[in-house]
Amino acid sequence: MLIGVDAMGGDYAPGEVVGGAVAAKSLLGPDDRIVLAGRVLEIIPHLAGADGWEEYISLADCPDVVGMDEAPVEALRTKPDSSIAHLARMHKEGQVNAFISAGNTGACVAACQMYLRRLERVHRPGISILMPTFHGPVALCDVGANVNCRPQHLLQYAIMATIYAERVTGIKSPRVGLLSIGAEDAKGNDLVKKTRDLFKAHKDLRFVGNVEGRDLFRNICDVVVCEGFVGNVCLKLMEGLTEGLFKGLAMQLASADSNLRMRAEEWFKPIMARYDYHEYGGAPLLGVNGICIICHGSSSARAIYNAIRVAKEFATQGVNELITTQLLRYSGNGE
Amino acid sequence: MLIGVDAMGGDYAPGEVVGGAVAAKSLLGPDDRIVLAGRVLEIIPHLAGADGWEEYISLADCPDVVGMDEAPVEALRTKPDSSIAHLARMHKEGQVNAFISAGNTGACVAACQMYLRRLERVHRPGISILMPTFHGPVALCDVGANVNCRPQHLLQYAIMATIYAERVTGIKSPRVGLLSIGAEDAKGNDLVKKTRDLFKAHKDLRFVGNVEGRDLFRNICDVVVCEGFVGNVCLKLMEGLTEGLFKGLAMQLASADSNLRMRAEEWFKPIMARYDYHEYGGAPLLGVNGICIICHGSSSARAIYNAIRVAKEFATQGVNELITTQLLRYSGNGE
Repeated sequence: MLIGVDAMGGDYAPGEVVGGAVAAKSLLGPDDRIVLAGRVLEIIPHLAGADGWEEYISLADCPDVVGMDEAPVEALRTKPDSSIAHLARMHKEGQVNAFISAGNTGACVAACQMYLRRLERVHRPGISILMPTFHGPVALCDVGANVNCRPQHLLQYAIMATIYAERVTGIKSPRVGLLSIGAEDAKGNDLVKKTRDLFKAHKDLRFVGNVEGRDLFRNICDVVVCEGFVGNVCLKLMEGLTEGLFKGLAMQLASADSNLRMRAEEWFKPIMARYDYHEYGGAPLLGVNGICIICHGSSSARAIYNAIRVAKEFATQGVNELITTQLLRYSGNGE
Repeated sequence: MLIGVDAMGGDYAPGEVVGGAVAAKSLLGPDDRIVLAGRVLEIIPHLAGADGWEEYISLADCPDVVGMDEAPVEALRTKPDSSIAHLARMHKEGQVNAFISAGNTGACVAACQMYLRRLERVHRPGISILMPTFHGPVALCDVGANVNCRPQHLLQYAIMATIYAERVTGIKSPRVGLLSIGAEDAKGNDLVKKTRDLFKAHKDLRFVGNVEGRDLFRNICDVVVCEGFVGNVCLKLMEGLTEGLFKGLAMQLASADSNLRMRAEEWFKPIMARYDYHEYGGAPLLGVNGICIICHGSSSARAIYNAIRVAKEFATQGVNELITTQLLRYSGNGE
């Protein structure tokens, strides 16, 4: 398997990205290889300490970089030689079998739509993150690929995220919740009310009903479906709140004596690790005709390493084939 | 001022509600009085320890109670003698000047719409909570009164929540953010894009642009505007996440020795207090022709006490008069 990695994507690129690729050596089989795309002259120095990297890493020189805040479609048009556009084209042409980036999310989504297209029957691709909770990961889909959803899009997110959660995360027959503002049928906006009927009618879905924001942390469901606008707001809210709480705790602790501080830090570590998105290794863009793993902008080497692991698992488990089979089985329904 | 309090509303009613009303004695002036509405026989035992309660508390017997999960409009229709319906009617008839409930939020909103109606020019009332953050409270409006918003509704939320934040919370010329999924103009759904133009054109608003979920905790804005569906999801997500994190920390600490545990609890207290919604005393339903303060379902006596404080401040500061003046000044715009 050839795994393309955008060396220029993310706040700590190329250093952390290259570091993650080097660390991922242990994940690779004899037929696996990583292709780092980006400005080769900026990548090379970070490979200096990695003896024998040529054995499992190739470089693809791309002079352009898409900035984190650039308008996606415009950026792809004006920068056809950016690492993101280049990797999406390589994927289309079979020169890589997966594409990982911690760069501009919108540009990744747009590049996939442009070059890879969608799997058969898929209306809209959706980004499915794994949210860390105390009861284990919960898959939340969509977190920003599609901000104007129709009920049929949400049904496909439920189907695709179920397959992903089961195959890549190892959750047995995942329970699916529809994000709303109350468990009752009467609650929610028009989209949720229409979607709920679709979910109920779809017998292959283990639908547990509407769930509220707090239910995400209560071991009620394994997959939560929502439209991209709501999912993205949630994702960033959780980040901000967690960051704020831990910062507050750290500030309080700073006033304690050093012995206590050290011991308290020991207690916090396992908690913080459970809420650490670096462990989950990026979010697949489900529904594209290929494998695209989108990482958080502030990804560390560890996050990139885990994204490579997810990309491999995604391919090994045949997630896309399963999605296509499922959707074809229901072809005609709600089309 | 006569302050109506729904003694039957909330998970810990009537005990905690009555406790809050008794504690609020210290807030009352010579012309102030609390009217506890509910089943008198269930209320009386909780007043046993409060000497001289008759001096500042009246009782209004209401045989019916609206359940937390009942369909609001249906419940009001079939239970016209519920404490919520009764208080809303009393408010309409001037027998109370404010109405506080920790009961069924939808029923409170419906009762206000039915009996109190809206302030002149207001399209839709919106619930504005104060979110605790490290930098102080942030007003989030709407958190569930209106799930199908138009841009003009969001503009009015911004205007009303600005007045509320300034007058009741004491934030000087509050900065207003529009909740979206990126700061750039091109990001967001159709509603946000249209609303953004309205906000920019409204010169009296201190609009700082689109904000993301994480920005709520970064001292970027004092008022955040969103539609009720998104706001309600956010509210419950924050509750669930905070609860989960603190529970996790408590579990970790339980394994520590007792001396360390006690000291660690000391550090946590100030953090937890800052995230404690009980301190903020309920959320006004802005835009109704009256004063309606909606409290969290799990409100303690302290939360009810604070809601009574907020109701008084709301009246003293003339929030509704200021809203009407502001909206009339722009009458014709966007109508």
